[in-house]
Amino acid sequence: MTSLFGADLAVINVGLSQFAEPIAAAGAPVLDVVWTPPAGDETVARALARLVNRAEVEAANATAFARYLAAQPALTGVAPAADAIAGLLERTILHSGPPIAWANMCAPVQGAIIGACIYEGWANSHEAARQLLDAGEVSFSPCHDYGAVGPMAGIISPSMPVWIIEDPIHGTTTYSNLNEGLGKVLRYGANSPEVIERLHWMQRTLGPTLAATVETLGPLELKPLIAQALHMGDEVHNRNVAASALLLKRLIPAALDAGLDPADLSAVVKFINSNDHFFLNLSMSACKAMMDAAHGVAGSSLVTAMARNGVKFGIRVSGLGERWFTVPAPVVDGLFFPGYSADDANPDLGDSTITETAGLGAFAMAASPAIVQFVGGSASDAIANTHKMAHITIGRNDAFTLPQVDFGATPAGIDIRKVIDTGIEPTINTGIAHREAGIGQIGAGITSAPMACFSQAVSALAETFDD
Amino acid sequence: MTSLFGADLAVINVGLSQFAEPIAAAGAPVLDVVWTPPAGDETVARALARLVNRAEVEAANATAFARYLAAQPALTGVAPAADAIAGLLERTILHSGPPIAWANMCAPVQGAIIGACIYEGWANSHEAARQLLDAGEVSFSPCHDYGAVGPMAGIISPSMPVWIIEDPIHGTTTYSNLNEGLGKVLRYGANSPEVIERLHWMQRTLGPTLAATVETLGPLELKPLIAQALHMGDEVHNRNVAASALLLKRLIPAALDAGLDPADLSAVVKFINSNDHFFLNLSMSACKAMMDAAHGVAGSSLVTAMARNGVKFGIRVSGLGERWFTVPAPVVDGLFFPGYSADDANPDLGDSTITETAGLGAFAMAASPAIVQFVGGSASDAIANTHKMAHITIGRNDAFTLPQVDFGATPAGIDIRKVIDTGIEPTINTGIAHREAGIGQIGAGITSAPMACFSQAVSALAETFDD
Repeated sequence: MTSLFGADLAVINVGLSQFAEPIAAAGAPVLDVVWTPPAGDETVARALARLVNRAEVEAANATAFARYLAAQPALTGVAPAADAIAGLLERTILHSGPPIAWANMCAPVQGAIIGACIYEGWANSHEAARQLLDAGEVSFSPCHDYGAVGPMAGIISPSMPVWIIEDPIHGTTTYSNLNEGLGKVLRYGANSPEVIERLHWMQRTLGPTLAATVETLGPLELKPLIAQALHMGDEVHNRNVAASALLLKRLIPAALDAGLDPADLSAVVKFINSNDHFFLNLSMSACKAMMDAAHGVAGSSLVTAMARNGVKFGIRVSGLGERWFTVPAPVVDGLFFPGYSADDANPDLGDSTITETAGLGAFAMAASPAIVQFVGGSASDAIANTHKMAHITIGRNDAFTLPQVDFGATPAGIDIRKVIDTGIEPTINTGIAHREAGIGQIGAGITSAPMACFSQAVSALAETFDD
Repeated sequence: MTSLFGADLAVINVGLSQFAEPIAAAGAPVLDVVWTPPAGDETVARALARLVNRAEVEAANATAFARYLAAQPALTGVAPAADAIAGLLERTILHSGPPIAWANMCAPVQGAIIGACIYEGWANSHEAARQLLDAGEVSFSPCHDYGAVGPMAGIISPSMPVWIIEDPIHGTTTYSNLNEGLGKVLRYGANSPEVIERLHWMQRTLGPTLAATVETLGPLELKPLIAQALHMGDEVHNRNVAASALLLKRLIPAALDAGLDPADLSAVVKFINSNDHFFLNLSMSACKAMMDAAHGVAGSSLVTAMARNGVKFGIRVSGLGERWFTVPAPVVDGLFFPGYSADDANPDLGDSTITETAGLGAFAMAASPAIVQFVGGSASDAIANTHKMAHITIGRNDAFTLPQVDFGATPAGIDIRKVIDTGIEPTINTGIAHREAGIGQIGAGITSAPMACFSQAVSALAETFDD
């Protein structure tokens, strides 16, 4: 000790920078290393220690990540959910996020389900629908349990047309409902007659028109289209302006050759044209296909789903089967439309975080400087966020390059170990729903996946190993 | 002198940094200010001195720039050049760039003109066309003399359908030919039967289909569409991917309502779809309208046109009437397609530099990181170029914001005085034509408008003042 303090000191300080200050003040050279201990309590830290540098986990992640990269989702059809989705039971409604009982659902989701009951003809009034639902005569499942995803409330009922996405590499099929547009829409809990009538038009005209078009077109690979949209300022979660235009460019020639009714085609084109989010549901189901390819690899710490039902935020992990690791969904403090504030916001909602799970959305935010007008921040913040996410991902996806970082590939494949180790929560770009049914979107912002989901998952993954 | 060198020196060095080095080596503090004298010789410097801070020039520029900003060009029609362009004489062909005689034209322009003679039925073979042209039986004018612009050879002959753009604010009308697509095309001097047949199809089907569509649609304002494309990675000179898709989105609903022949509509949509440069000619004619609005203000040093005919590069200036200030067109040292080099390149060609003149193209390059894959450089170079161009412009155009610089407005309105004063030549993104007719595009790159055009113009503008 005497000899230590007798000599001239040169100090490396790790962690709390306050310890470095008095040393510097005393005139000694000091290097202050920014470091924080892993997130969570001692139990989580011990679980993490068992997973870090563990050969089985590394090998499982390599397998899962390679499967994610190899996925090649293609749009192959449009059909009513009851026909398209294998095993979907009668009087079953799919919703976004982790499982939840009718009584516990948030108001926008309940409003959307009431609307779906009326749309399906199971009830002819709000009161009748609520009686049916209170009596337990409708069953519910997460969309994710059927290979599906839906934005916001994420409601898919049997008669609704769905996009069918097939990945021939892994033999998986995924689904999403069709985007209704902006304003009063079912996904925000609106269920007025105009909303129901639009759903009937989508069933009667939009679905069959798209079905005939896609049949004429043949399989449409979605990763190249997403890659092109990333070069045109989209991050394909909250900004789908380019992707929606590119989709229309692909569909129109086939639609013109499909022998469709001209009035129907005109109405469908105007409907798609009026909604710059139209591609979102395809983006989501393509991402779902990529993550389903990576799911179910024993020992893998790769996150394969992040989703919210407006009450709970949950994640799934490749090596942990069908379990959800959930915590209360956060309220997003974003940019609110005039007249609204965080007090009006429903907690975080929707399956659209499957885009961030797949390395898109906020992970690819560098590609989308214009998104900051919608979710807040600056163009340099968007680039910084992409760089930050690279600290918690297994690798990068060369299929998705980002011009703003000189065509660097997007960081992808969230590793629950890295989230805990770095204390960096996955960033999410999201729309914000009003907490009352039917008012709709009231803002958008940047939030993150809560750390506690990842703590639970790390502990659970450690338990799958004997030592 | 003794007292100066007797005291401790603190030196500010302006210009040649070599003078600062020995002072620094001797231990004295020295601030090295980067500065170069104005470009050109003493005569130009004296002319510049008469124009800088001159009230008449400042006032004229304020007027011209306000007129540029106020222009609101809208697509209002499509018609054959002979019907649309006022005063276009029989057997007249318009070409890009400054005026040039048949004998002096470069090979790609001569090839395109031979093709136009065959297309118009004025000759039935290359030999017959050449005889006609050598005999002086066809007259030529720059597109610019008729309010028109054309990319590359820029050939407009009487039967070709043209876009009609009207600016109701200033009562101006501008024109451009329709983009033929990629590969063997007239604008690169190709004149084979397939090229001529495509031109006939454009006259027979594309033109009338677009004419009926635009009539159904009504006036389509082009600045909002360009602004949106800038938020989607275009700079609307060499990258028009988003703008072409957005244009199709606007045209399709009207086309479906216009009662068109379904086979024609299908063919037209496929033709537009296959060419991501389709919007270029609209971008150019919109820019031409903005610059025509600013032209003709006595005393103004604002550049209102930059254009090349493959032999000469020329500029026009608002306060200097119809005069062109020309120098030999430079050869662009860019990125060449496999098998080609600068040795194969024709000197710079085309009216498309009207985009840079209007604050788009290379001036808005920050918005288009993906363009560097085509013209070279990195995303940060693209941003740096936009900042650099702000040193030579009169102001910024708030109609065109660039997400990558946190929605700063594009620098616009080149001031010949600032070009000479700073020694910064206006940057240009450009395609490169093969120097032989008909081979087509062999590369793309970044070049600049030659300083000597601006020297001439500064001298000429100074001569318009008595003192």
